[in-house]
Amino acid sequence: MNDYIRPGHGSGGKLMHELIHDIFFRHFGHHELKKGSDSALLQSNGHRLAFTTDSFVVNPLFFPGGDIGKLAVCGTVNDLAVCGAIPQYLSAGFILEEGFSIAELEKIVISMAREAKNSGVNIVTGDTKVVHKGMADKLFINTSGIGYIPEYAGSFANNRKIKKGDVLIINGTLGDHAIAVLSEREDLPFQSTIKSDCACLNHLIHSLLEKKLHIKFMRDLTRGGLATCLNEIAQAQAIDIEINETRIPVKASVEGICETLGFDPLYLANEGKVVIIVSAEDASEVIETLKADDLGKESTIIGKVTSENGKKVIAESAIGGKRLLQMRTGEQLPRIC
Amino acid sequence: MNDYIRPGHGSGGKLMHELIHDIFFRHFGHHELKKGSDSALLQSNGHRLAFTTDSFVVNPLFFPGGDIGKLAVCGTVNDLAVCGAIPQYLSAGFILEEGFSIAELEKIVISMAREAKNSGVNIVTGDTKVVHKGMADKLFINTSGIGYIPEYAGSFANNRKIKKGDVLIINGTLGDHAIAVLSEREDLPFQSTIKSDCACLNHLIHSLLEKKLHIKFMRDLTRGGLATCLNEIAQAQAIDIEINETRIPVKASVEGICETLGFDPLYLANEGKVVIIVSAEDASEVIETLKADDLGKESTIIGKVTSENGKKVIAESAIGGKRLLQMRTGEQLPRIC
Repeated sequence: MNDYIRPGHGSGGKLMHELIHDIFFRHFGHHELKKGSDSALLQSNGHRLAFTTDSFVVNPLFFPGGDIGKLAVCGTVNDLAVCGAIPQYLSAGFILEEGFSIAELEKIVISMAREAKNSGVNIVTGDTKVVHKGMADKLFINTSGIGYIPEYAGSFANNRKIKKGDVLIINGTLGDHAIAVLSEREDLPFQSTIKSDCACLNHLIHSLLEKKLHIKFMRDLTRGGLATCLNEIAQAQAIDIEINETRIPVKASVEGICETLGFDPLYLANEGKVVIIVSAEDASEVIETLKADDLGKESTIIGKVTSENGKKVIAESAIGGKRLLQMRTGEQLPRIC
Repeated sequence: MNDYIRPGHGSGGKLMHELIHDIFFRHFGHHELKKGSDSALLQSNGHRLAFTTDSFVVNPLFFPGGDIGKLAVCGTVNDLAVCGAIPQYLSAGFILEEGFSIAELEKIVISMAREAKNSGVNIVTGDTKVVHKGMADKLFINTSGIGYIPEYAGSFANNRKIKKGDVLIINGTLGDHAIAVLSEREDLPFQSTIKSDCACLNHLIHSLLEKKLHIKFMRDLTRGGLATCLNEIAQAQAIDIEINETRIPVKASVEGICETLGFDPLYLANEGKVVIIVSAEDASEVIETLKADDLGKESTIIGKVTSENGKKVIAESAIGGKRLLQMRTGEQLPRIC
């Protein structure tokens, strides 16, 4: 472990995983925390609920397709939904830098309120702190969220065993969020019209769960992208996964920027994408259900589980070559969420 | 409303109340949020729970009697307890500045784990973000918390009507936290051995609630101190309150520093103090119960409710003079929690 915090400690890759295991898991020790899920699944006085937290430090605060406020609501709603919970209540904690514009704050708050309404959650408790100029970068937001596990999601939330032959599905194109934020931040040598995919996926996800399809795993693809997420699940469940690169949806414009700048879209952050692992027999019904929702129109099968005794993630290219997708140390783009 | 965020917007006084009402309450709009309680009291699938959030930006991170980690656990635990909830689960969101020492982070995490254990809560979910050097001041922590309302606290959590003759009680000396943090921060022209009172009050508070005493209101005295808290309750319930300054416990050393620097201990932040409003007939049993706990040894009656038709907070001095305690615009000491 390095002695000082580096940008990579916050970007979803290996460094962050080490920090989380060596410091947070080790000392806090609770079994739900150590699962490393998007939400903790808890018992409160005989009642089953999900609880999650996320801080947002995205730079810049406004970007094509969203802003830090929309991101804060969607990120927390999605973390609840992928665990099978119906998101109900959010908290909102603001850390404000002295000198930050109250008009901009209000724009962000309005955006949060709109997104909360769209997704059916209520912001019910909050906190405001102010630090002197130069002690924070404009505005940071923490949103924590609570949801309950509906009857129909009960067995999913138990996390079924993934088997050889199970199928991987995603609900649309990769990398849009990262490239939208980047293009707002950097003086790119070209025009970009790419918008962030930032969206609340709870209605999409619950349309699947309600049908009691044989879903085994879901995760929203944020920091670290698809490749990091698949490595996490491969290691946690000791499975091998193979994805087919020609089947991964990536917008031509995103692919172009990735080629120019040397990014791999498989590692780029998304804010409205979910990967779903489902038994092969239910795959086509999952696709059909996803496609009925605007946020799932481009849903597609991207790969499968190839072994129940491994930990590798392999990508097969258009010409049949295979490469190992490893977890990276850091990420190319810090402060993407 | 001023156009830009000022330090006073985060310090518990009038400016912060304006910001909260004009921006957050207005756009988020939920009735529980607008109550401005320490926790939101919610229904989740037929189950009653409390939910709260707090971000911590205290400077410095370590001070006599505590550190930002202990503060983060105690602050959130106390916000749940004063609403009658049994604190159960906490989240922990970290915003780290590049270059921050991992050894210091670990010290803070160990302190959080210890305090969580002492108070009987579990840290079950977390998040880590990193920003570049100069974009935050070392470390900020958000802790959000969930608790359930036990049977015996049911009627208290409904917030009984406060009446003329009701009695005000606090559990010990005022201003210790603010002065402890200040003395660590500033080059004071004198020595100070004052420790922060930072403590989790949930066991103390539930020893009262279990006895079903006629408690009408409780709040932990943080930013803005006793005077701000009493103004909030006087305005919310349209009552007049009178406190007796000679009865307010303040350590001689804290009083000395306050006199030198021109602070009023009634407005200074505390992190282990609660004000309790109780019917006169139950006051002595409340005092007795509080004194049985180490955190309540110096509990005392400090004043009473003098009218059910007003909004004023009056302090009577040793020689019988009376002064109006108003809500201040900002606070003397920013980043105290």
